[in-house]
Amino acid sequence: MVHEPDNIMTCGKPLGTCLRIIENFHGWKAPGLVLGLFMVDLAQELIGPQVEADAIVETCHCLPDAIQLFTPCTVGNGWMKILDWDKFALSLYDRRTKHGCRVWVDLEKMRPYPKLYKWYMRLIPKKELPLDVLLGIILEAGRHVLSSQAITMTQFHDRVKKTGINVCPVCNEAFKATQGSICRACQGNGYYEGHRAKVVGN
Amino acid sequence: MVHEPDNIMTCGKPLGTCLRIIENFHGWKAPGLVLGLFMVDLAQELIGPQVEADAIVETCHCLPDAIQLFTPCTVGNGWMKILDWDKFALSLYDRRTKHGCRVWVDLEKMRPYPKLYKWYMRLIPKKELPLDVLLGIILEAGRHVLSSQAITMTQFHDRVKKTGINVCPVCNEAFKATQGSICRACQGNGYYEGHRAKVVGN
Repeated sequence: MVHEPDNIMTCGKPLGTCLRIIENFHGWKAPGLVLGLFMVDLAQELIGPQVEADAIVETCHCLPDAIQLFTPCTVGNGWMKILDWDKFALSLYDRRTKHGCRVWVDLEKMRPYPKLYKWYMRLIPKKELPLDVLLGIILEAGRHVLSSQAITMTQFHDRVKKTGINVCPVCNEAFKATQGSICRACQGNGYYEGHRAKVVGN
Repeated sequence: MVHEPDNIMTCGKPLGTCLRIIENFHGWKAPGLVLGLFMVDLAQELIGPQVEADAIVETCHCLPDAIQLFTPCTVGNGWMKILDWDKFALSLYDRRTKHGCRVWVDLEKMRPYPKLYKWYMRLIPKKELPLDVLLGIILEAGRHVLSSQAITMTQFHDRVKKTGINVCPVCNEAFKATQGSICRACQGNGYYEGHRAKVVGN
């Protein structure tokens, strides 16, 4: 069992509550997501409670869920953008002023936690580092392995607007007008073969 | 106030509970997300409770949050993929058998609900269709405006594996190894200017 001290607050809630929220949404206490909790917590403190911040995250793995769970920003409401750079970093920013704050995992600060470093750099097989051990190290490390910087956004700061839609003459579904006269799927880029039968499964 | 009959169950929960979950996560009862709730509910029923399904969604707007809230699939755990096609459609599938089910908004079935149709086709300004009215129509329409089909996945069915990472010699952060010898941000594609000061905000 990982020791979860209840006197630690993260993102305005007791740490144990945050860990349960993570497990409930993400399916398990993914170490990257627990580290992400501390990152969001730090970014929120730096940007301050008065700013209704938008978010940008520099990896697809785990970290987007930390933002979705502990800020109002989600992928579906358009307040969070995801960059597929595999950098474990996130920024919160005021889209009006373009001022914000970037938080990232600092490799130098990770050196005192060699197992954490090896996990982070994908140098150790899962079976050699049990989840409970890794989570214990992350809870101990917390903010100590993070760095932060005030930033001014230079791109990606505007919210993505909905564009026009057309009706595809082949499938008769609405689709993004900028993608041509017929939809992507009917252009041959679909991901499925359809069957007449309604019954699915095996 | 929208009438939310408590005897209707969606995704295994009373409808009113689902609407509160939506509002809590997404920030408001976005009509697209409420429609998405009925889509996930139908897809889950068709694929059956025995399948631990992965998900694919064909728009960035609203619908990804319905999947994240009412299935185990999230953007951060990698079980949900998002296609930026602006098609209001989703599929749940068994990644082992590649069999699944696609659910989409059927324009023909929407004709009996002219206000819903106009909203969906982005033909009516927000101020001419109050949210409560629109939500009432969506709750009345429910599955009646949806179509579904059994499918076999032909691409995007495998989970995205984590790839190798390198340390960028400029910023000293880890990044996706396939993106070059230095990271995207240090290549000049970053989204921010950094400042020395730690104080952010206005």
